[in-house]
Amino acid sequence: MAVYTHLGAEALGDLICAFDVGDLVSAKGIAEGVSNSNWLIETTGKPGADNQPAGARFILTMFEGRTEVADLPFFLGLLDHLADAGCPVPHTIHDRDGASFRTISGPDGEAKAVTLIEFLPGVSVSLPTAAQAHAVGIALAQVHKAVADYGPGRANTLSLPDWRALLEACGEDGLATIDPALAATVGAELDFLDAHWPHALPRGVIHADLFPDNVLMLGDKVTGLIDFYFACTDIVAYDVAVTHAAWCFDNTGRNFNPAISAALLAGYETVRPLSKAEREALPVLARGAAMRFLSTRAYDWINTPQDALVVRKDPLAYARRLAFYADPANAALFA
Amino acid sequence: MAVYTHLGAEALGDLICAFDVGDLVSAKGIAEGVSNSNWLIETTGKPGADNQPAGARFILTMFEGRTEVADLPFFLGLLDHLADAGCPVPHTIHDRDGASFRTISGPDGEAKAVTLIEFLPGVSVSLPTAAQAHAVGIALAQVHKAVADYGPGRANTLSLPDWRALLEACGEDGLATIDPALAATVGAELDFLDAHWPHALPRGVIHADLFPDNVLMLGDKVTGLIDFYFACTDIVAYDVAVTHAAWCFDNTGRNFNPAISAALLAGYETVRPLSKAEREALPVLARGAAMRFLSTRAYDWINTPQDALVVRKDPLAYARRLAFYADPANAALFA
Repeated sequence: MAVYTHLGAEALGDLICAFDVGDLVSAKGIAEGVSNSNWLIETTGKPGADNQPAGARFILTMFEGRTEVADLPFFLGLLDHLADAGCPVPHTIHDRDGASFRTISGPDGEAKAVTLIEFLPGVSVSLPTAAQAHAVGIALAQVHKAVADYGPGRANTLSLPDWRALLEACGEDGLATIDPALAATVGAELDFLDAHWPHALPRGVIHADLFPDNVLMLGDKVTGLIDFYFACTDIVAYDVAVTHAAWCFDNTGRNFNPAISAALLAGYETVRPLSKAEREALPVLARGAAMRFLSTRAYDWINTPQDALVVRKDPLAYARRLAFYADPANAALFA
Repeated sequence: MAVYTHLGAEALGDLICAFDVGDLVSAKGIAEGVSNSNWLIETTGKPGADNQPAGARFILTMFEGRTEVADLPFFLGLLDHLADAGCPVPHTIHDRDGASFRTISGPDGEAKAVTLIEFLPGVSVSLPTAAQAHAVGIALAQVHKAVADYGPGRANTLSLPDWRALLEACGEDGLATIDPALAATVGAELDFLDAHWPHALPRGVIHADLFPDNVLMLGDKVTGLIDFYFACTDIVAYDVAVTHAAWCFDNTGRNFNPAISAALLAGYETVRPLSKAEREALPVLARGAAMRFLSTRAYDWINTPQDALVVRKDPLAYARRLAFYADPANAALFA
């Protein structure tokens, strides 16, 4: 959560001139997103346009290391497709040449891709209520329905073989610095997931990272789904599992909230009922979802200096979710 | 430049309810200010109030370590006094009980003071033009006039004896890690300043930190002077010297811009002409201003881990300004 690149007022003003949105009035670097720089931009609004009054607001994103520029047409086209379909997703603002992103020269001369998207109201909740989880379930299912006629696809670069590669890169010694039992646990779990992964389930474009941070809400209403920069083509029910793992526990992973879980799934099924095969696969998919975040967090934990700019997130919060989903006592959860 | 404390949407919503500004619509942590946490807040606006339409925006500041809570009445009263006097300074928003700040319990239970202030449009320039420096000179002089009838005062906690204390705390060895000649330079300079400091000049409340970062502009117009949390009672012309040191050089301190210097001083004098004594003292005051930032930057440089959350600022950028102001060849600058 940081602004990684300094963009001066003059550079920001020039950049905004490339869009038909009026003149720059305000620009604040915002602490949002894990790997990109973001600014909340205000302009005088597009001259003569009713839908962009004075005080029009936008989010300017500069893509830093983690997002591949080659993937931007997929990500940004997806935002426009979902917004057009009525999902609460920001439209992209195309520039005067019709492009959805531009490449500019950063302060150090390095080329950086930037995009301007619609600002959406709402705040990210920390302690969701069941009513809020219900609304998020609905919004997720609406996305899964709306992508049916979105043409482009993108391979998931954080799927089962990638989790194994990340954890192997940590090494047994590295994992032991997090927890002495972790290497044995993940070894056995990866073998289990390899043997039981439900490859035959319906696939589609998924968000793959729908944490509370990436949902804007006003009261019980979802006003924005944001940060689609992990979106990819994968098992649709896996996205339900990721969202379940992200919403139904406290930050430590120690406390599961059954009311949130039930509301999230019920909301989802009001729009897109899960098939019997999907429902039966959810326990395995949820173990996979826990392993996905355990693997990246463990890798980042070991490879991020303790006092670095980025706050390290505890991998064990996902080891605990993994243990929860793998516990036969919880098998009835998704039944 | 960071958000040091995480405030959840629920805590933010509760906090905003304590003010008569409508309901919370959006809250973004912003990367602004060196030592406090800030959020850009949007609300539905005060019901029935013409001056707070839907989309009313505010800055919420949470005071972290560096600002003394006992000083808040001075700082916040100053904002209201200056705004009432027509200076481009944000009004504070008082809560329903009439208080200009509140104390809330942070996530770790620690009590933190927070204040809500008016949002002002504008951006901070990186490469000021002479016309912009002229406008900043005018705005600074307007502040110096407007404080004449502001009752409260606050001792400057970063004045000459404090610079010496900070540099002595660095130690000769510490200063040598920055530059081998630095300890000798600052020793001689501190003695010079002790001998020549112009204690008899007019005093008043000064901003004391008016860097381009703390000025919002739209084109050549100053729309906001912000971040008054170093404001104090000191020599008025010293504030001119601080602003001069902050605006008239590039970031490295190597390149002085005579056009900016002339425009800043000319703008200032359209509102508050400098006396002969003030003008004659400006070379010494400018050396003091350079020493003030050299001392805090050197202290922070030595006491901040290289890979810490806060970006260290180069002390030598102020050693170079100091050398510039002390050079007899530049004596005519303020004549």
